[in-house]
Amino acid sequence: MHKIHFATSNAHKLKEARNILDTVGYEVEHIDCDYPELQADDLETISAYGAQWCARKLDKPVMVDDSGIFIEALNGFPGPYSRYVEDHLGNRNVLKLMEGVANRKAVFMTVVGYCEPGCEPHTFTGEVEGNIAIEERGMNGFGYDPIFLYNDRTFGELQDHEKNRISHRGNAMRKFAGWL
Amino acid sequence: MHKIHFATSNAHKLKEARNILDTVGYEVEHIDCDYPELQADDLETISAYGAQWCARKLDKPVMVDDSGIFIEALNGFPGPYSRYVEDHLGNRNVLKLMEGVANRKAVFMTVVGYCEPGCEPHTFTGEVEGNIAIEERGMNGFGYDPIFLYNDRTFGELQDHEKNRISHRGNAMRKFAGWL
Repeated sequence: MHKIHFATSNAHKLKEARNILDTVGYEVEHIDCDYPELQADDLETISAYGAQWCARKLDKPVMVDDSGIFIEALNGFPGPYSRYVEDHLGNRNVLKLMEGVANRKAVFMTVVGYCEPGCEPHTFTGEVEGNIAIEERGMNGFGYDPIFLYNDRTFGELQDHEKNRISHRGNAMRKFAGWL
Repeated sequence: MHKIHFATSNAHKLKEARNILDTVGYEVEHIDCDYPELQADDLETISAYGAQWCARKLDKPVMVDDSGIFIEALNGFPGPYSRYVEDHLGNRNVLKLMEGVANRKAVFMTVVGYCEPGCEPHTFTGEVEGNIAIEERGMNGFGYDPIFLYNDRTFGELQDHEKNRISHRGNAMRKFAGWL
């Protein structure tokens, strides 16, 4: 089984990556690498920079994952700053911003960055379109999952294997594995 | 008159820096240097990295300015991402987040980063405490000025020379000039 080094400090992302890549024949090994995250409007820039930084520092091929939720009526907010907004405002305040807003379209996006030492980084983008729910529902997943409606259920109401089959992270990881 | 190179893409910041540093005998020269901004919870990290990056790239002493507004009831949001939030949500939505919130305390903060080639960066922090207004008031200043209450007036209602005497940017720039 091929091995992939995944630099992340997020246990949820690690678990999802393992489940997704295991089904296509890759073993995910966690590595600690506290890479600098850039401020940028697009996740590609952030992932590419992080992967290249880790590959240089550790002198081995490294994968990183940058993800975010882009809410159309809020001009893409919180986008690249989704984790900061989750930690500081929480879903309750995101729902407050969306009170009385008719357009509830949102896109969940993951960009996998991958880089081998001495090479340019590659990025693999996965998306899933949905809507912002009226209230939090479901206990599964993490982050924005309980307020992201896909068809009639939130990601928080899906089982792991259901979510991984359709999710932004699943799509990005499978693109990456296909390229490998 | 001594000359200081200021790397910024914000014309408002440039104007304020010129007015403030002119009064203490420094001439501010604008330079273009599109430095990478890190994601970090504190402005010091972002300013120090930016100043060092520019000093290396341009091989001259460079000043940068990173500023943000930290709202206590929102756990410091929008903080280091104040410009992104201003561009994507605007003051209208920040006021929406604060609807019904009794604690309206906020701190405006500027961290000046300064670095000479081959040296470690220095940072100079300026703060001003105030409150988030109930509605936007005043046409002066920029960004969050119309919703930042200092005593009974918003920064948007102050004249430039009044604001510069008390503002976060004024405090940070004068600390920096004192050190120089």
